[in-house]
Amino acid sequence: MPSALVLIADGTEEMEFTIVYDTLVRAGVKCTSALVSPSGTSGNDEAEPGAVQCSRGIRIVPDVSLSRLSASNIAEYDAIIIPGGLKGAETISQSFLVQSLVKNFHENGKLVGMICAASLVAKASQLPRQPLTSHPSVKGRLDKDFEYREDSVVISGNLITRYLTSPGTAFPFAFTLVESLYGAQKRSEVIDPMVFPPGTPL
Amino acid sequence: MPSALVLIADGTEEMEFTIVYDTLVRAGVKCTSALVSPSGTSGNDEAEPGAVQCSRGIRIVPDVSLSRLSASNIAEYDAIIIPGGLKGAETISQSFLVQSLVKNFHENGKLVGMICAASLVAKASQLPRQPLTSHPSVKGRLDKDFEYREDSVVISGNLITRYLTSPGTAFPFAFTLVESLYGAQKRSEVIDPMVFPPGTPL
Repeated sequence: MPSALVLIADGTEEMEFTIVYDTLVRAGVKCTSALVSPSGTSGNDEAEPGAVQCSRGIRIVPDVSLSRLSASNIAEYDAIIIPGGLKGAETISQSFLVQSLVKNFHENGKLVGMICAASLVAKASQLPRQPLTSHPSVKGRLDKDFEYREDSVVISGNLITRYLTSPGTAFPFAFTLVESLYGAQKRSEVIDPMVFPPGTPL
Repeated sequence: MPSALVLIADGTEEMEFTIVYDTLVRAGVKCTSALVSPSGTSGNDEAEPGAVQCSRGIRIVPDVSLSRLSASNIAEYDAIIIPGGLKGAETISQSFLVQSLVKNFHENGKLVGMICAASLVAKASQLPRQPLTSHPSVKGRLDKDFEYREDSVVISGNLITRYLTSPGTAFPFAFTLVESLYGAQKRSEVIDPMVFPPGTPL
């Protein structure tokens, strides 16, 4: 069973977080939500973290604090996924632990997924120049260091990023992650029972 | 500013809850998530409730316990919305408080929205016979008492229900709620910045 770390912080966009986590669970991925506390604070990094306040006010309790995971815990994961929401993405991108993890996952060929403003983490983690997309509001901070694209979903080896201002493409992004972990057949198996309206581009 | 009560219980489908709540907040609706504890239990009805465990494992902290709201608190709300997830919908439909509230909102011309299995609440609340839809798994418990339809979204006066097994139509449902509260122009204003892929039926 593949496993994924899904990062979360105060200000994370709750639809992006939830759609990706829930869709991966439906596909059979073991998901763990991991709290990232703001750098330079004592933070909320208890073993059992309290709720984060997401961008539209929904409060979600992370499964673990990222800082409490050991190297051997982390080595077991097959993917790291970072949802958007500008405030949450800023916090996550400034974390040295996150930067180290993303660099490590990328170098080891593990799946790295970033949505919207979370693409800031690619730069903060000094990932090599490659195709990437992001929320338009942070394009100016990324387009010198990456081959910036404006596609809905950009796949560059094991780095998958998602463009657009909001959750409108969160489902296609989640299905692309599923396909990366399991292959194309699983993508269909997960989409079919969700019964999207006919004509929905997925 | 319109306001909406969005019910939640252990087993609520987290995408359905989150997509509706978040979309309504984006439209300017004041949303309050209200915990429904299982009937016949002492429950988790503290003024500051703990997290519920949703259907795919995400833990969400409700804003309030429904049982702690006073009649005058409740009278201020313009809408009551009930997400699906079979286990959560069963718990919510069995609550006498919820049944009373839904009947009261419906009789007073306030918006009542139900997704998937949550349509069970329409029957439990003894709403009058009218067009309605639901998750297919509970169709057999509803089609004698209502004019059962198999459309994505069914609008019957101030009762809006949503068909289909999963979150594939949660966005159109949420946009229909927005239109009911504000009119058609607001629907477009909320959809446009979400930048869905071209061709998405909304």
